[in-house]
Amino acid sequence: MLFHVHMDVNLPPDLDPAQRDDMVTREKAYCQELQRAGKWPHIWRIVGEYANYSVFDVDTNDELHQILSGLPLFPYMDITVTPLAVHPSDLRG
Amino acid sequence: MLFHVHMDVNLPPDLDPAQRDDMVTREKAYCQELQRAGKWPHIWRIVGEYANYSVFDVDTNDELHQILSGLPLFPYMDITVTPLAVHPSDLRG
Amino acid sequence: MLFHVHMDVNLPPDLDPAQRDDMVTREKAYCQELQRAGKWPHIWRIVGEYANYSVFDVDTNDELHQILSGLPLFPYMDITVTPLAVHPSDLRG
Amino acid sequence: MLFHVHMDVNLPPDLDPAQRDDMVTREKAYCQELQRAGKWPHIWRIVGEYANYSVFDVDTNDELHQILSGLPLFPYMDITVTPLAVHPSDLRG
Amino acid sequence: MLFHVHMDVNLPPDLDPAQRDDMVTREKAYCQELQRAGKWPHIWRIVGEYANYSVFDVDTNDELHQILSGLPLFPYMDITVTPLAVHPSDLRG
Amino acid sequence: MLFHVHMDVNLPPDLDPAQRDDMVTREKAYCQELQRAGKWPHIWRIVGEYANYSVFDVDTNDELHQILSGLPLFPYMDITVTPLAVHPSDLRG
Amino acid sequence: MLFHVHMDVNLPPDLDPAQRDDMVTREKAYCQELQRAGKWPHIWRIVGEYANYSVFDVDTNDELHQILSGLPLFPYMDITVTPLAVHPSDLRG
Amino acid sequence: MLFHVHMDVNLPPDLDPAQRDDMVTREKAYCQELQRAGKWPHIWRIVGEYANYSVFDVDTNDELHQILSGLPLFPYMDITVTPLAVHPSDLRG
Amino acid sequence: MLFHVHMDVNLPPDLDPAQRDDMVTREKAYCQELQRAGKWPHIWRIVGEYANYSVFDVDTNDELHQILSGLPLFPYMDITVTPLAVHPSDLRG
Amino acid sequence: MLFHVHMDVNLPPDLDPAQRDDMVTREKAYCQELQRAGKWPHIWRIVGEYANYSVFDVDTNDELHQILSGLPLFPYMDITVTPLAVHPSDLRG
Repeated sequence: MLFHVHMDVNLPPDLDPAQRDDMVTREKAYCQELQRAGKWPHIWRIVGEYANYSVFDVDTNDELHQILSGLPLFPYMDITVTPLAVHPSDLRG
Repeated sequence: MLFHVHMDVNLPPDLDPAQRDDMVTREKAYCQELQRAGKWPHIWRIVGEYANYSVFDVDTNDELHQILSGLPLFPYMDITVTPLAVHPSDLRG
Repeated sequence: MLFHVHMDVNLPPDLDPAQRDDMVTREKAYCQELQRAGKWPHIWRIVGEYANYSVFDVDTNDELHQILSGLPLFPYMDITVTPLAVHPSDLRG
Repeated sequence: MLFHVHMDVNLPPDLDPAQRDDMVTREKAYCQELQRAGKWPHIWRIVGEYANYSVFDVDTNDELHQILSGLPLFPYMDITVTPLAVHPSDLRG
Repeated sequence: MLFHVHMDVNLPPDLDPAQRDDMVTREKAYCQELQRAGKWPHIWRIVGEYANYSVFDVDTNDELHQILSGLPLFPYMDITVTPLAVHPSDLRG
Repeated sequence: MLFHVHMDVNLPPDLDPAQRDDMVTREKAYCQELQRAGKWPHIWRIVGEYANYSVFDVDTNDELHQILSGLPLFPYMDITVTPLAVHPSDLRG
Repeated sequence: MLFHVHMDVNLPPDLDPAQRDDMVTREKAYCQELQRAGKWPHIWRIVGEYANYSVFDVDTNDELHQILSGLPLFPYMDITVTPLAVHPSDLRG
Repeated sequence: MLFHVHMDVNLPPDLDPAQRDDMVTREKAYCQELQRAGKWPHIWRIVGEYANYSVFDVDTNDELHQILSGLPLFPYMDITVTPLAVHPSDLRG
Repeated sequence: MLFHVHMDVNLPPDLDPAQRDDMVTREKAYCQELQRAGKWPHIWRIVGEYANYSVFDVDTNDELHQILSGLPLFPYMDITVTPLAVHPSDLRG
Repeated sequence: MLFHVHMDVNLPPDLDPAQRDDMVTREKAYCQELQRAGKWPHIWRIVGEYANYSVFDVDTNDELHQILSGLPLFPYMDITVTPLAVHPSDLRG
């Protein structure tokens, strides 16, 4: 079941660089583990912003919330989730 | 080069049904032709809305505008285009 | 799987009364059939508005879109869907 | 008398963890006591956000304000209250 | 129990003048009857707008919705309802 | 001459409690003095928010600004002022 | 007593030209009569819009509403009124 | 003196095609005449929208308003004007 | 050439009082010097807000930016500039 | 390929002046280097704001994101990117 997710990251510019690097490193590992598991099939950087559009493929709403609230950068993010359905024009639908 | 596109369709409820069916049929054919050409790799229906999130893969901004302004439903749509870049966490990046 | 849905109805004041009554009657029957089926467990009127907050219980996003786009008043509605998860403080969670 | 309430929690990421845990623990106890008393019949987590949609069942507006302003996390919340009425299509109405 | 209500009236400029006069006359009578009954204690015109701020004093949310949805101009209004509580600084509280 | 005023208070959660209590106490005294003088005939708490709707009765715009900018909590408030006129349906108009 | 007023005019493009000319002519006469009376000391066109910023000098809120609601173009306008006070830096204050 | 202008065109989909073509043809001629005169140095299509970003080079605000309000499509446009100054980093500044 | 300017001042409530007084004093002197020079013909306080509406009379956009960016309170302000033209109904136009 | 970019800079007023000067100096050098390379053909100051409208000429979305995210002031900016196409009325199109 697919969900469209917009993530907007707001890190304070004066954050301790070591803390920042640590969080960003853990975020990347967490993200790639979910890609390998097929849960996070798409992630794109929005040009000019510290933000991304992503698509998640999960079994339930609860699974999606567990994944998103576990993001290392979650406390610094504004997240908007939109449920997706098959589009009638989609050749793969 | 990828672009995220939000399309929101506003057809007047009292539109002539034949005109409506004709436009929707042509829209579907136009969309599927672009999918086959690899220009429109993703289209998802937004649950509960006559709207979609799409991803386009084009060579230039001008090509994208030509495609979007050629949509049979273009006069009835609100369209928002967001350029996408490779995300540093994307395994396929 | 639960979803929070906000439905805002915009019927033109000069709509033919017979057409209006017919749509509202079919909307009510459609809604109550889904309540009986356990798919639409909650519907509340928003005070002072021709609008409602509802909760749906469905198996998939596609099922929810099929239900919502089948509403007799769908062409006159603005709908916003929010996926819900179990709250950690919910005694029934 | 039912009210729909949207609560959006904004805890500063650098809040002292002990203070945070204490507040969250007290919030949960407060919430569950009101659930047991039948005052807070529904609470759902909004997927991807530190926020919830709730339904309260109270006798008066004053009682509702007393409950909400007494939330341990109240100083960190944006709260929006919407009064609800019986929907004419509600089978239980 | 008090509620703050904002009513914004949008009559189409080309509405038939007789129909308009009839609705406005019925609106005034309806409003004054509720004032006499103590249900609509305050109504103020917003300067420069065809809109008002009102305060209603009702027993339940359902009673308020019945009153507001019965307004002759209801199909032409945008209405926003805000529940009010006693303010701790109010000398009459 | 009547004015509708919306006051939204934003006190930082980590404000010194003594400073906070002092300001709130002075705010209450200031407010009640103006009620007694007939300048501030109505104040209502907005349910679920640290905010109020008020009505002021003053002779001039300048008098109203003097009153509002003198509020002890003024530096922490977002204030919106709307001038009111007699409504043609008001029985007391 | 001064008020800042923003007027935004929305005439339908297919309005009958004679009706349009008549309204605009009456609007101009009405406006200039109020300028001569000292009630409407300033009116400026907003560049690129069918809109203006104005300043009114009236004795009461009721007088201002009477003036604004009497504008020949009132049914086609969105109007926003902001009360003004003397600025402490104003040399003429 | 430079101004940034955003023009958003809203032509009704059911406009008479001959009237539409006539207006668009006159709009193009009007635009190109101003380009040749050096008054309208830049015009770009916004991808996916019937809208443009433009830059105008005029002597006064009044000249700019005269140009914009003379656009054949002016009655169907939403226009936003932003005055521009030389940027301190501009090599040509 | 006239410009309408909205200035909204956001001073942190815990700003050092001496620094605040110094800035406000310099702001007043700067403002009055420009009034005497005929560059800042109007300034009005917005009732209930630490904000003003002003009208500037300058020769160029660059002159206006130089004036506004030189305001002692500039780093604490949100400023919106709107170019003005002569209104066709203005008796002084 | 052209892109319209809006950059809004939010430097905290209490930023260390040396750090501020250093960043602004590096920003200017970075900007002028890109102007010389033909990548940043236009930059205009928005009058009254610490903001600019710019036009970039790049080969790909990824190149644009690399440029923008490398701005020395990037952590303090809100950036909005809009892809541009040739306008059919553009004489140079």
